[in-house]
Amino acid sequence: MTHPHFKGFASDNNAAVHPAVLEALATANQGHAIAYGDDPYTLHAQALIRAEFTPEAEVFFVFLGTAANTLGLQAATQSYHAIICAETAHIQVDECGAPERFTQCKLLPVATNNGKITPEGVQQYLHGFGFEHHSQPRVISITQTTELGTLYTPAEIRALADLAHAHGMYLHIDGARIANAAAALGCSLREISSDCGADILSLGGTKNGMMYGEAIVFFRPELAQNFKYIRKQGMQLASKMRYISAQFQAMFTHELWRTNAQHANAMARELALQLQQIPEIQLSQTVQANGIFAIVPPEIIEPLRQKFFFYTWNETRNEVRWMTSWDTTTTEIDQFVAEIKKLLHQA
Amino acid sequence: MTHPHFKGFASDNNAAVHPAVLEALATANQGHAIAYGDDPYTLHAQALIRAEFTPEAEVFFVFLGTAANTLGLQAATQSYHAIICAETAHIQVDECGAPERFTQCKLLPVATNNGKITPEGVQQYLHGFGFEHHSQPRVISITQTTELGTLYTPAEIRALADLAHAHGMYLHIDGARIANAAAALGCSLREISSDCGADILSLGGTKNGMMYGEAIVFFRPELAQNFKYIRKQGMQLASKMRYISAQFQAMFTHELWRTNAQHANAMARELALQLQQIPEIQLSQTVQANGIFAIVPPEIIEPLRQKFFFYTWNETRNEVRWMTSWDTTTTEIDQFVAEIKKLLHQA
Amino acid sequence: MTHPHFKGFASDNNAAVHPAVLEALATANQGHAIAYGDDPYTLHAQALIRAEFTPEAEVFFVFLGTAANTLGLQAATQSYHAIICAETAHIQVDECGAPERFTQCKLLPVATNNGKITPEGVQQYLHGFGFEHHSQPRVISITQTTELGTLYTPAEIRALADLAHAHGMYLHIDGARIANAAAALGCSLREISSDCGADILSLGGTKNGMMYGEAIVFFRPELAQNFKYIRKQGMQLASKMRYISAQFQAMFTHELWRTNAQHANAMARELALQLQQIPEIQLSQTVQANGIFAIVPPEIIEPLRQKFFFYTWNETRNEVRWMTSWDTTTTEIDQFVAEIKKLLHQA
Amino acid sequence: MTHPHFKGFASDNNAAVHPAVLEALATANQGHAIAYGDDPYTLHAQALIRAEFTPEAEVFFVFLGTAANTLGLQAATQSYHAIICAETAHIQVDECGAPERFTQCKLLPVATNNGKITPEGVQQYLHGFGFEHHSQPRVISITQTTELGTLYTPAEIRALADLAHAHGMYLHIDGARIANAAAALGCSLREISSDCGADILSLGGTKNGMMYGEAIVFFRPELAQNFKYIRKQGMQLASKMRYISAQFQAMFTHELWRTNAQHANAMARELALQLQQIPEIQLSQTVQANGIFAIVPPEIIEPLRQKFFFYTWNETRNEVRWMTSWDTTTTEIDQFVAEIKKLLHQA
Repeated sequence: MTHPHFKGFASDNNAAVHPAVLEALATANQGHAIAYGDDPYTLHAQALIRAEFTPEAEVFFVFLGTAANTLGLQAATQSYHAIICAETAHIQVDECGAPERFTQCKLLPVATNNGKITPEGVQQYLHGFGFEHHSQPRVISITQTTELGTLYTPAEIRALADLAHAHGMYLHIDGARIANAAAALGCSLREISSDCGADILSLGGTKNGMMYGEAIVFFRPELAQNFKYIRKQGMQLASKMRYISAQFQAMFTHELWRTNAQHANAMARELALQLQQIPEIQLSQTVQANGIFAIVPPEIIEPLRQKFFFYTWNETRNEVRWMTSWDTTTTEIDQFVAEIKKLLHQA
Repeated sequence: MTHPHFKGFASDNNAAVHPAVLEALATANQGHAIAYGDDPYTLHAQALIRAEFTPEAEVFFVFLGTAANTLGLQAATQSYHAIICAETAHIQVDECGAPERFTQCKLLPVATNNGKITPEGVQQYLHGFGFEHHSQPRVISITQTTELGTLYTPAEIRALADLAHAHGMYLHIDGARIANAAAALGCSLREISSDCGADILSLGGTKNGMMYGEAIVFFRPELAQNFKYIRKQGMQLASKMRYISAQFQAMFTHELWRTNAQHANAMARELALQLQQIPEIQLSQTVQANGIFAIVPPEIIEPLRQKFFFYTWNETRNEVRWMTSWDTTTTEIDQFVAEIKKLLHQA
Repeated sequence: MTHPHFKGFASDNNAAVHPAVLEALATANQGHAIAYGDDPYTLHAQALIRAEFTPEAEVFFVFLGTAANTLGLQAATQSYHAIICAETAHIQVDECGAPERFTQCKLLPVATNNGKITPEGVQQYLHGFGFEHHSQPRVISITQTTELGTLYTPAEIRALADLAHAHGMYLHIDGARIANAAAALGCSLREISSDCGADILSLGGTKNGMMYGEAIVFFRPELAQNFKYIRKQGMQLASKMRYISAQFQAMFTHELWRTNAQHANAMARELALQLQQIPEIQLSQTVQANGIFAIVPPEIIEPLRQKFFFYTWNETRNEVRWMTSWDTTTTEIDQFVAEIKKLLHQA
Repeated sequence: MTHPHFKGFASDNNAAVHPAVLEALATANQGHAIAYGDDPYTLHAQALIRAEFTPEAEVFFVFLGTAANTLGLQAATQSYHAIICAETAHIQVDECGAPERFTQCKLLPVATNNGKITPEGVQQYLHGFGFEHHSQPRVISITQTTELGTLYTPAEIRALADLAHAHGMYLHIDGARIANAAAALGCSLREISSDCGADILSLGGTKNGMMYGEAIVFFRPELAQNFKYIRKQGMQLASKMRYISAQFQAMFTHELWRTNAQHANAMARELALQLQQIPEIQLSQTVQANGIFAIVPPEIIEPLRQKFFFYTWNETRNEVRWMTSWDTTTTEIDQFVAEIKKLLHQA
């Protein structure tokens, strides 16, 4: 069904690895380095990330985003706690229950139309503190950018962090695509995380041009205290860790993370602009980063997918998701839109 | 403490990545590929591995060896089961309790002098079947080559598999270094796994020249049936899986796995030969693969470690572990032995 | 705050033990009986319950309702499964996350106004089968009578069971108060469980006049197959089990379970009738069993609670819950209503 | 196989409930009491137990001994910890893996001939602190009296507590039969627990004449801090808790616990004395409390069991276990010994 040179709009996970990242891997491939993170690549990568946030941030590398979310949440919880998140959150719908399995916490979903939760939406779950029959609310988890391609403003994040802290809770950010958010907002990563009061950040790498590897960044030292055991037992301590670290070195040198994210965002904007000229296509979410959600005539979905692979988001209303990535080209967008128009014309 | 070009005898995990593996990563880095394993690299790598074992084998890739062991064991167990292993097994002493955390099973350690368990040693735990107060024995897990550098012969594996099956149990092999065993025995991988009745194999890659990635190979279809959920929930489903698969393609083309393992084994043999000429050094385990265990005069340990990094295995008896790897050179061995002699002479 | 002879309308859990149950305990207190259930009391109690349902039913005793729910669900699930229930379900809001902790499954809450779920409400979660990123729906769990005092008809249960089975799922009934439902409907217990296609029943005892003890009844033999291990590991295998069994013997002799439930239901009906005469009190749920939900003038809540203890259900709308039990008397109801009237008059 | 009036020497779990306990249950059976422990019986029972130990002790009731052990251990551990215990410990061999399932910790068994562990035996596991590959030792757990009927002296307990504390660890006592130990030693309960530095005590009730119910006593406030959630989520919060509490009230009034234990111990001593007159019977453990272990001619085991039920402890060496209880009579002992002699004579 697929072939190596195939490109589409299915996911930024389908994209290749950025050349600078691949080069960093080759550069790191010399001699021996002590396994499990006690190597100079790791120390340097951690320092680069701390510099991006705060000197007190604690940085741990893991293999993948589900682990960044799940283990970061585990660091903040006991089994009798509850985690509040959007009903559309990756941790709620896309991780096969990994958060429940590892944290053993209850996940409490908040209804949302745009992937974002608000203090009002969270409020319904902020009761029963101290009541032993009730899973104790402990973490508010948000995704930036959201699974629906939307953004939280710094003020919105701050409001949720304040609400969390007022109840002795933590704010966690699933930042698998936080680079896209910072690029879109024209701000630093810290301005939408630690500066807003976030306590735990899953800092994504893979979706933005890396081969594998994500970081967990703790902004409270107590959360990091025993995390090395949680990571090891959580099966996320890489033996040859230098190869994750080298990738992060590349990403945090000359802000490659921003360059990649800006490009993906720009491609989404371009695609959205062209789509808005097509009356049969209706954008269902505001395009703020690198994801486009659209309601399209059902008869074009399958033929279009044959040429440019993508996923249907909501079958009952013919809503599809198109993602751009660091390696999307304007040529591909033009071809894609041309194909859409051709199919609509045929219909 | 370490620098990029540093080489030593601490661990095959400290070694670099084989050039052919790095090249395979670069070759795979073209265009888009569907995430999560539905890509041609993965299909091909699985086929190559099945060809090495049996057509019915089911092959799943994960990030690291602890996960290969733990999730492979989970596929065969319920929480009320017990897993029998050597007291020196990686799953017992080196995984921070990951097997207990994920499988929730009890681990039953068998005493051993050489890292190998025998039917006699296992027998003590084969009782209480059907008795609800007792964790039900379900899996015998062995490591090939063992954590002490020794080997199981095919007949020894067969005997343990027969014992397991006679009690409705499974045999699991932690094959993080199974390549070294096959290279040492001059046999195929299947001759020391599926042909002997093994049911689950953790097939190592990282220690033998890969960057990251291990495979779980099931030789019974019922164990694989729901494994995709176990892997995803177990946080081991790589999004950009093509880059694990490409590495396995390289390893299973022209038996690179054997070439690498043979080299590491030969380097260990060479080192052992030279050490046997030094009366102050006493080998504490038979050298059968790429690990050397030796009791050495305590005064040379620290100065030697400064030049060539390695780990002390047993402090109370001054026993050290020296591992060779695919990239160890005879020059390094000569320098290492020369340094030992120099330090002994000074003492 | 409380004294031994205090009676109120807080919970059927606050009621005493029925004299016949206490007598059964005394009668069983002779000589020795083999521990852990291999005793004649247990065999007889199981036979009585099987006779109430079907000869193939498998009956296991546990200490409490949370365990009956949680372990019954565990028997039907793996960690990557999901359990669908009402957002008001005891397993969702009153068990401090025990179901997540033990089953490690995701709980998917269905919105409801009256504590009941419908096939339409469940439907939203019946997708993603076979998709490894998604917790696999495995059980629909309902409560009979519901946490809001309402009832499912046999046809409603059958519809949910059919929906479950059509998707390879199970139907679980939290029957902590199933006796009240059967009494209200004038039917047998089997007519609202096994006859409707239910697969697992938590059969309540404590709320209906027992001291402690609940039963798990499986209507599919495969669910019971390894349950003895699940119960023991789940810390619910009573050593002196004869004393749970003797209580169930009492309950299933001359249908004491029905007598007790009928009385509690009758008391609730009587109370509801009297409350309907008071214009300031508004019943917020249909009174179908032994629970009454009412919206009351806020100023009377605290003074009333001083005399007759009860819980506020929803503070924001001044909704209270009043439960009757097997030992509620008409005198108490008259006194309670008189006190309400007195307080309203004073206000 | 069994009948109500049957008595034997199988287990103190097979014994009936002491009349004073049954009477306490009847006395408590008046009116309503707030569920889940907010009742006067519970407050009083907790006060009685605190008075036996220290005013700062925190007391929680649960249903059974496995839960007392498992939840008490959970309060002191995270999943990456290890628990050190005798290879014969109840938590290691008789709880179907409940400790691993709940605490997710690794259990490290210490070899023992008499059920007791020593600082020397524990020492082998006291390494790897701070090393993330290694489950971190966190609790030493001992059983008093042991599963082999032997006793720890206060000095022996103190030595283990000191060792634990020196490594930042806790000492847990499985006191399912601690009453028998205190009775045998002629000391208070506190002299063999809190006074020796124990941190967590499982305080048994069921084996010593209660119907059901055990207590967890914490001697460090930090361990009790969130325990109410652990107990509820651990499915051990009794709704009608007054009936557990009333039993403890009876046990801690006029030291009924000691009277019962003294009697059981005296019966074991009497039985041991008579057995020592029989040359064919060899006691295999020192009889210090209410358990007798003996190696007997194999041909008498089955016929003897037909008359007086008991369990074989070790089949390979014809070792049996005979337990006395609060309700054992000298007549039964005489009959039992007479039967043994008759069978030996026949043989």
